[in-house]
Amino acid sequence: MTEQNFIPQDPNFAEKTRASFAQQGFMKYLGAEMTVIEPGRCEIQVPFRPDLSQQDGYFHGGVSGAIADSATGYAAYSLTPPDTSVLSVEYKLNFVAPALGELLIARGQVIRAGRTLTVCRADVFIVRRGEEKICATSLSTIMSLATGNRSPATAPRP
Amino acid sequence: MTEQNFIPQDPNFAEKTRASFAQQGFMKYLGAEMTVIEPGRCEIQVPFRPDLSQQDGYFHGGVSGAIADSATGYAAYSLTPPDTSVLSVEYKLNFVAPALGELLIARGQVIRAGRTLTVCRADVFIVRRGEEKICATSLSTIMSLATGNRSPATAPRP
Amino acid sequence: MTEQNFIPQDPNFAEKTRASFAQQGFMKYLGAEMTVIEPGRCEIQVPFRPDLSQQDGYFHGGVSGAIADSATGYAAYSLTPPDTSVLSVEYKLNFVAPALGELLIARGQVIRAGRTLTVCRADVFIVRRGEEKICATSLSTIMSLATGNRSPATAPRP
Amino acid sequence: MTEQNFIPQDPNFAEKTRASFAQQGFMKYLGAEMTVIEPGRCEIQVPFRPDLSQQDGYFHGGVSGAIADSATGYAAYSLTPPDTSVLSVEYKLNFVAPALGELLIARGQVIRAGRTLTVCRADVFIVRRGEEKICATSLSTIMSLATGNRSPATAPRP
Repeated sequence: MTEQNFIPQDPNFAEKTRASFAQQGFMKYLGAEMTVIEPGRCEIQVPFRPDLSQQDGYFHGGVSGAIADSATGYAAYSLTPPDTSVLSVEYKLNFVAPALGELLIARGQVIRAGRTLTVCRADVFIVRRGEEKICATSLSTIMSLATGNRSPATAPRP
Repeated sequence: MTEQNFIPQDPNFAEKTRASFAQQGFMKYLGAEMTVIEPGRCEIQVPFRPDLSQQDGYFHGGVSGAIADSATGYAAYSLTPPDTSVLSVEYKLNFVAPALGELLIARGQVIRAGRTLTVCRADVFIVRRGEEKICATSLSTIMSLATGNRSPATAPRP
Repeated sequence: MTEQNFIPQDPNFAEKTRASFAQQGFMKYLGAEMTVIEPGRCEIQVPFRPDLSQQDGYFHGGVSGAIADSATGYAAYSLTPPDTSVLSVEYKLNFVAPALGELLIARGQVIRAGRTLTVCRADVFIVRRGEEKICATSLSTIMSLATGNRSPATAPRP
Repeated sequence: MTEQNFIPQDPNFAEKTRASFAQQGFMKYLGAEMTVIEPGRCEIQVPFRPDLSQQDGYFHGGVSGAIADSATGYAAYSLTPPDTSVLSVEYKLNFVAPALGELLIARGQVIRAGRTLTVCRADVFIVRRGEEKICATSLSTIMSLATGNRSPATAPRP
């Protein structure tokens, strides 16, 4: 019931979103790929490597948190006007099953896009032997900032 | 006012905590170091590398989330009896300033340790040119599970 | 995609849930009514009164929080075995629009039911001049406790 | 370490905060009293009545949530310039002990005050037979809005 059709305000939403994602050194480092970007939706996938594990060999919760954060941030960014940047204000993540498997998928979606704040959720799925199962779910707040001609890195803080 | 002196139930709390941390492939991968472990407290540090950045060159929020999650998990683990393991149930993270600097430090502490659930918080600090400033804060729930002779990886789920 | 069909473990799930709700003095005080109880789902409604307002005449966020908390708690309780009670471990609530209107509706649903912990979400809707709109959304963790012959009030704490 | 001395931007911070609190019908209805208002800090108390109970006779979690929400909102409001209003963006609340007793106290404090967003926490205490104990803790985000000559109720939404 919170699924909606969103109209992007920036016709280049897909390009700008992919370009920003490509600049996230951490996503590259994790081996993360942005597999879907649509108005109000974003999917990010990470294949398992031992480098990404916690003490029991599952994906570390920090990986779920990182891709849920990026997936919701980019879902929000897909709906902002040109010349804006986005920042995560906060997120909450519930772990609902062990992330034991070969692939982790975060699917972020916008619940409500406001002028300044956008509320999103993400579900994170673990794929084990080809079967997909929810392993975490998040709820987050994203802020958009007008960048004008300033670079985002020097934009005033919230 | 929520600062307390906690009595560990396991005299080997420091060894078991460091041993578990050493098994987290993801912490090693991030270059994270456990710099403090005391009853009910844990500090984890990560030096900056471009690999850990988001699109503007700050530490990615996922790094803050990962070390806050580990710092609270190990703060809780320092207080559990022998033959238990811990799992993160959930956490919430607020970003309060840009994580632009050379070192990221998460300080986790137990607010209240229960038999099954422990509530913790972490503050995350960014060090820039030697000056330390809070950049994120978290509130989390950790579950302890009796492991008996079973390995944690096969322990029943919450 | 997290919508599921849940099988109740207690054939009297509706009776026990309504009986417990009837014992919540605070829900009666708010004028709250449990309008739907199904396996894994619960809906609670509250009509507006000035007593329930914040400083601008909207429903106070505390009312949204209270009925979201109860709706998720009872959604979880509908799936627990006989002789268990439930406690809220924590919840997070995002306000997404002003709650200005004549009726507030919280719809809670289980995302994943575990043996000890159940993760739920609720959406809260405001009805204004007959039109329903989402105004808040929550994500929460509920714990179930075996009560045996003990009364819930004396059950050991988490 | 997140305790700070804050300088109010509005010399009338105490009056405006108390005046806004007095307009919250819900706080009056709960029997809540604002017992402390200082720059960046606010305390709210509610005496027990059966009207405020959940099914086991404790304070309902919704009461803790409501006064934690108001205490953090007013802690933030104490630091905003004249002609601004505040709105809760979101909060997370952990219940850490049963709220069984005669008085509930929420103590809200600002962690970091930004131009648009302020991050706060509250601890909630239950007083039983005169002894005070933490029973819940929250982490929240508050937004400030310039009201100019418009009434807050018609201010544009975030």
